[in-house]
Amino acid sequence: MDEYSRVASLRLDHADPLAHFRDRFHFADADTLYLDGNSLGRMPARTPEFLAEVLTAGWGAGLVRSWTEWIDWGRRLGDLLAEHVLGARSGEVVLADSTSVNLYKLAAAALDAVPQRRTIVFDPADFPTNRYVLQGLASDRGLRTRPVHSDPVHGVDPAALAEVLDTDVALVVLSLVSYGSGALLDQAAVQEAADRYGALVLWDLSHAAGAVPVRLRASGSQLAVGCTYKYLNGGPGAPAFLYVREDLQTSLRQPIWGWFGQRDQFLMGSDYQPVDGIERFLVGTPPVLSLAALRPAVELFAEAGVDALRDKGIRLTELVIALADEWLAEFGVTVASPRDPARRGGHVSLHSPVAWQLCQALMQHGIICDYRDPGRLRIAPVPLYTRFTDVWDALSDLRSILADREYERFPSELSRVT
Amino acid sequence: MDEYSRVASLRLDHADPLAHFRDRFHFADADTLYLDGNSLGRMPARTPEFLAEVLTAGWGAGLVRSWTEWIDWGRRLGDLLAEHVLGARSGEVVLADSTSVNLYKLAAAALDAVPQRRTIVFDPADFPTNRYVLQGLASDRGLRTRPVHSDPVHGVDPAALAEVLDTDVALVVLSLVSYGSGALLDQAAVQEAADRYGALVLWDLSHAAGAVPVRLRASGSQLAVGCTYKYLNGGPGAPAFLYVREDLQTSLRQPIWGWFGQRDQFLMGSDYQPVDGIERFLVGTPPVLSLAALRPAVELFAEAGVDALRDKGIRLTELVIALADEWLAEFGVTVASPRDPARRGGHVSLHSPVAWQLCQALMQHGIICDYRDPGRLRIAPVPLYTRFTDVWDALSDLRSILADREYERFPSELSRVT
Repeated sequence: MDEYSRVASLRLDHADPLAHFRDRFHFADADTLYLDGNSLGRMPARTPEFLAEVLTAGWGAGLVRSWTEWIDWGRRLGDLLAEHVLGARSGEVVLADSTSVNLYKLAAAALDAVPQRRTIVFDPADFPTNRYVLQGLASDRGLRTRPVHSDPVHGVDPAALAEVLDTDVALVVLSLVSYGSGALLDQAAVQEAADRYGALVLWDLSHAAGAVPVRLRASGSQLAVGCTYKYLNGGPGAPAFLYVREDLQTSLRQPIWGWFGQRDQFLMGSDYQPVDGIERFLVGTPPVLSLAALRPAVELFAEAGVDALRDKGIRLTELVIALADEWLAEFGVTVASPRDPARRGGHVSLHSPVAWQLCQALMQHGIICDYRDPGRLRIAPVPLYTRFTDVWDALSDLRSILADREYERFPSELSRVT
Repeated sequence: MDEYSRVASLRLDHADPLAHFRDRFHFADADTLYLDGNSLGRMPARTPEFLAEVLTAGWGAGLVRSWTEWIDWGRRLGDLLAEHVLGARSGEVVLADSTSVNLYKLAAAALDAVPQRRTIVFDPADFPTNRYVLQGLASDRGLRTRPVHSDPVHGVDPAALAEVLDTDVALVVLSLVSYGSGALLDQAAVQEAADRYGALVLWDLSHAAGAVPVRLRASGSQLAVGCTYKYLNGGPGAPAFLYVREDLQTSLRQPIWGWFGQRDQFLMGSDYQPVDGIERFLVGTPPVLSLAALRPAVELFAEAGVDALRDKGIRLTELVIALADEWLAEFGVTVASPRDPARRGGHVSLHSPVAWQLCQALMQHGIICDYRDPGRLRIAPVPLYTRFTDVWDALSDLRSILADREYERFPSELSRVT
């Protein structure tokens, strides 16, 4: 059988042990082929029902009394993520605020813990908000920021990191999976390189959580943040998570001293005394409705298992790459993600000078993926709800769009991309 | 007619021009009498339906494409609040983060704008998170915090404030309505006193927004934050708002440099360049589902008008006070809120050494109000959905509970109060 035939993909779908999870998601329109779950994950089918219950029984009927139920949702969801997604222990993860705010809190806490060290190492190709947050902290504290060499396809190599490390480095901030190329860094090797100089590592897991097994504990990771609205399917702008390794918690003090981080919160004492545990990294009242939407989402991971998802994820991205090589290379489309599956996250970036026009043409075909400057089409086949035939259909349409020069009908000028 | 009779309250309900707004709220259980809308406002009846639409049509069907709709909800809801609730201009208010995080951002921005000034003035009776946030900022920056005299009933007098002001004061942080006593400060007089020394004033409007006309512009207010889940009925932990007077915006730079504050956000440029407008005080991706719940809530204020609500609110709290004087004084219950309605917000605090026991006994009667240390029962009759007869019924039950010494059956020891 021709491995590039649609029948071959169909057979993979039939043999897929995770195929039934697709039914656990909401599909509004059978004609939309969604490959942008790394921007906003699909809605689990149970989410509207669960949220309606929180609204009607929780807020509507329970009113203020429901706070006895809601008060520790951030912690309880954190424990679920720790166990089923992040490879951390109970009490090491909590849901709160946005990824940006969490990055600020943990980076500030880390910098303040080693005031004699004056350098922050960052990836110049990292997601913008990460760079901006660090710029702000460096500006406030009069610190230096030092870029590490970042390969456009493979990201940051532990050896490249070692070259920019010294004992002046307080903090290294890196994304475990690059939002651009999808490169998956070697978590343990990075941590080991930083450990040699006593630098703390703060991971952004936004594109990793739910896509690859993270293993925070096993890699010796110290600090991490991440978002929950991509592979974790928590809904638009769902609260972010943060992780602090247990033994570091009491020695770190985050800068925003709010009442949710206070010991005996409801005694409302006069002086701020942070709790001993992970809750000391909380600040204000959490957005309960947005937190609620995370519950049915995280439960799917407990059920499917992140290793099984990773296995399917690799096979899906392998198919994207195989079809791109076979069908698209002749049109100047190149694979801009690592070819080694062990070094690749959940999406594949395809480079083309007309990538933005291709993205628009695909949209016209009912195929949603996304575009990132410069010239990259990101394709994310999400194991929980993407079929091998979806990948085949999308790449096949992309081949037609290129062969027929259909993309030329779309503007090359980028206005605003979300 | 006896002004303390139930019939008198019934007549007030019949004559109430806002009475029909009660039907715009969700009532799950006719037997629950809710007087805790200053902790968590009731759910508007339209909220579940609107949220279901955002889930199904927005997230479910629109998927990532819906971000073109969601992207400026924080700003659009801010404009609605500015116009209908806060007396500010379009472009001066935005929804984002929690009240605590917003307080941190604006206080830090204010302190950094006048680095030669080394003192923060605060109210030692202010809501805990406000005090903690300021303690943290003072600790980070080596600044002094200076308490202002705060009367347990009347709060901070402008004359008392003037006594602690000098040209070393960078920032004054006060709650317009005290969470404890419900005291409503003289906003313009406080601002004027601070202006004489060139100190910035940052208002916490959490207990004011939606309860009293705030008039940020008319009072010359510079900075404010506030929550939306109390009188504004935005739902548990709904995103908070922040206000920065237009002429101050470009001269202030908040400390958390995130991508939602960045000019041309989706160009993802290498250096942080904050937008010129109010969006420079944004940080990360907003929790869309929690933001969505605010929409039907804010619309009710546009419809009812905050002045009409204030008029009814005064009459409701006058009734609480009249009945407390008439019925409860003999049992040692005293009014711990200002008697002058012009100096009182939306709730009345009743002081009693057995207030916590009274609170529990009322709960047994299906009457929800709340308790705050030391010895205060807070009663919030919310004009949008509380009837005069509700006040009568609650105070009447409270009288029986005291007369029959029913409260003695409940523990006097405070465990955890939310």
